[in-house]
Amino acid sequence: MSTSLQILLFIALLIAAAKTAGSLASRLGLPAVLGELLAGVILGPSALNIWHMHWLATPGEGGASVAGVFKVLAQLGVVVLMFVAGLETDIQMAKRALKPAFWAASGGVVLPMAGGYLLSRWFGFGWREALFIGTILTATSVTITAQTLMNLSQIRSTAGSTILGAAVIDDVLGLIVLSLVIAVSARSGGGSVGNWKALVMPVSYMTGCLVAMFAAGPFLTRWLMKQASRMHGHHMEVAAALSIAFLMAFTAESLGKMAAITGAYLAGLFVAATPSHERVIEELRAMTNSFFGPIFLVSIGLEVNAWQSGGYLGFFAILLGIAIVGKIVGCGLGAGFAGFSRRDSFVVGIGMIPRGEVGLITASIGFAAGLVTRDIYAQTVLLVLITTLITPALLRYAFPKELLQASVSETAAAEISL
Amino acid sequence: MSTSLQILLFIALLIAAAKTAGSLASRLGLPAVLGELLAGVILGPSALNIWHMHWLATPGEGGASVAGVFKVLAQLGVVVLMFVAGLETDIQMAKRALKPAFWAASGGVVLPMAGGYLLSRWFGFGWREALFIGTILTATSVTITAQTLMNLSQIRSTAGSTILGAAVIDDVLGLIVLSLVIAVSARSGGGSVGNWKALVMPVSYMTGCLVAMFAAGPFLTRWLMKQASRMHGHHMEVAAALSIAFLMAFTAESLGKMAAITGAYLAGLFVAATPSHERVIEELRAMTNSFFGPIFLVSIGLEVNAWQSGGYLGFFAILLGIAIVGKIVGCGLGAGFAGFSRRDSFVVGIGMIPRGEVGLITASIGFAAGLVTRDIYAQTVLLVLITTLITPALLRYAFPKELLQASVSETAAAEISL
Repeated sequence: MSTSLQILLFIALLIAAAKTAGSLASRLGLPAVLGELLAGVILGPSALNIWHMHWLATPGEGGASVAGVFKVLAQLGVVVLMFVAGLETDIQMAKRALKPAFWAASGGVVLPMAGGYLLSRWFGFGWREALFIGTILTATSVTITAQTLMNLSQIRSTAGSTILGAAVIDDVLGLIVLSLVIAVSARSGGGSVGNWKALVMPVSYMTGCLVAMFAAGPFLTRWLMKQASRMHGHHMEVAAALSIAFLMAFTAESLGKMAAITGAYLAGLFVAATPSHERVIEELRAMTNSFFGPIFLVSIGLEVNAWQSGGYLGFFAILLGIAIVGKIVGCGLGAGFAGFSRRDSFVVGIGMIPRGEVGLITASIGFAAGLVTRDIYAQTVLLVLITTLITPALLRYAFPKELLQASVSETAAAEISL
Repeated sequence: MSTSLQILLFIALLIAAAKTAGSLASRLGLPAVLGELLAGVILGPSALNIWHMHWLATPGEGGASVAGVFKVLAQLGVVVLMFVAGLETDIQMAKRALKPAFWAASGGVVLPMAGGYLLSRWFGFGWREALFIGTILTATSVTITAQTLMNLSQIRSTAGSTILGAAVIDDVLGLIVLSLVIAVSARSGGGSVGNWKALVMPVSYMTGCLVAMFAAGPFLTRWLMKQASRMHGHHMEVAAALSIAFLMAFTAESLGKMAAITGAYLAGLFVAATPSHERVIEELRAMTNSFFGPIFLVSIGLEVNAWQSGGYLGFFAILLGIAIVGKIVGCGLGAGFAGFSRRDSFVVGIGMIPRGEVGLITASIGFAAGLVTRDIYAQTVLLVLITTLITPALLRYAFPKELLQASVSETAAAEISL
């Protein structure tokens, strides 16, 4: 059986499983992403072990193995997903509540990062792995928070818009941290942090690449998208946007020594500023929801074996605590510093707890690069699941009750899709 | 550099080149497909030889090579394209002019098939290769004909609707012939045609699979699409449709011993009969136009080396003659048999000349299966180019002038996109 045939079967099963599980999750009031992730866990070694199915286990006749091709597809999927994340970034929202959002995001990056690093060092991990574990904890995905805030009619409240703005800033800060960590822990750097060159060289590559991208990117992107929109033919703008995203992802990793997703995210921000952005988003969404999204989320679950990650239970319990308390305290202090009341600061902190796709993407990059072990990877997936599951209840508890009663009538006006 | 990174660069360049060339072709009044195909030829060994570029030539760090992964992507692309072809098939159009369309299509399949087979045998090819060369000649793609007919305001004329109907029937007949040929020339069949079992076994597999698909397929597809449309979440219908297409493609090849594209095409026909079909088409078109389409068309050009296919010049000239005259005479006789005037029969025959995506897909399947050599593959690409380029002029010449003048006013009414 040829590899293409195996991939056909595999993707058919994968899409069906992921979308069914995603739909069930969403019916239970949870983000669809969680269901798709769980579908991957079930298809993986934790339960069905799909790679050992007769039709998929036999090596394909072509040069490439199913697993090898699938890995590349999943990494292509990550790039497309981060491009869409950039496209959907609401910069206006971040600007509106810039000051509190910035401080909340910064606090929520520094504290979990430091906590994760120190804990990992304490448990005997090397500095690279510890740095990476810290980085994973910096991520925030406010999809579930935004949904809950909408249900509570608080999406346009001070705390609500601060959370949404802080999430944008957190994405950017998280990517910077991730790129720095990747640059610093690149293979060329030898074994020690003391190596001065190992730190300066990659950081200067990264800075040079980012400066070049920010200097030329917006203008070039606008020009290319304009040319594309004038061209004869259908769907020229999505095609151009995809091409730009792939090229910037490639450049970020190969020339800038950063993560490819940083380039894809920046491409998304740049395309978002062009007149074609709504069209591109709409046409890309079908592609990500039906193809690249399920492929990426299932690929994560497939790497996880729920029965083999019991070793570090104590470590995981503390890590989870740091992930939760680090955001509540870090973001809360940041918001308080910007003048928020205690209650509002607490709400902001809780809203920033859930890790999500970005945390998973970060972990998968570290896993692919050999910076984190399979165990830590599995624990990250669990961490994402738990932080996402607990947030809605915590938020409901944290919100001042008198505020909730006052604003029930606003429900109809609030509609935001993240 | 990892394979994923190489694929990112490669696809970025590929999409940009294909869409630019497609847009130029379309500005010149030619089908965009031709431009995208030529972009592949230019990127391939005929000119730029992109696989030898420094960044792509170094073997990737993962288990899979760029070329290997790209091949799988291209074959995934073919399946998606044939699924869309099935989805867009206008069965009503075929029914409206059923009798003449059926006879025209049949004549246009039998004559080129027989001519291609005999010519190849005469030039010393084995029976499998000869059968396959004949099969490639049976294809018809009326995109360019439909465009020309629209320009001439003849798309709704007797000849026009017969051509469109015959193209549908030709697709189905062509797939049946292709599946038969693949089944019969499967490796298990030993070397000789005389082997009775080698013929009966695969044909019975194929028949069994087709009967099962036609018996259960429409009902199951309708049921699945209905479930998908009721599910919580976005783009559930496209996801379900893709999953069905991949699964049927897999089944057709692995259980039915047919070409995977036959399953994909049937899946398209089945989904086209559900209420979700317009939505699915619209959301898939962005994906095919911006991603899978360019990948497939460029992959064909990449396999062709224009400087190394001069060997069979005499053979190619006669083959081209058979491809053209076979359709004019075969389809024309069929239409005449159904009672068409000589002029109209001639027009139908000319309208059916262009080979297109289906011819290329057939050739690429034969090439992948080792049934046709690289030389023949290259000649097929040339054949598709030439038959497509000459048709508009021939059609304009063939149409009765008095008819053209009478119907100029109808232009506005005629709008069909194929």
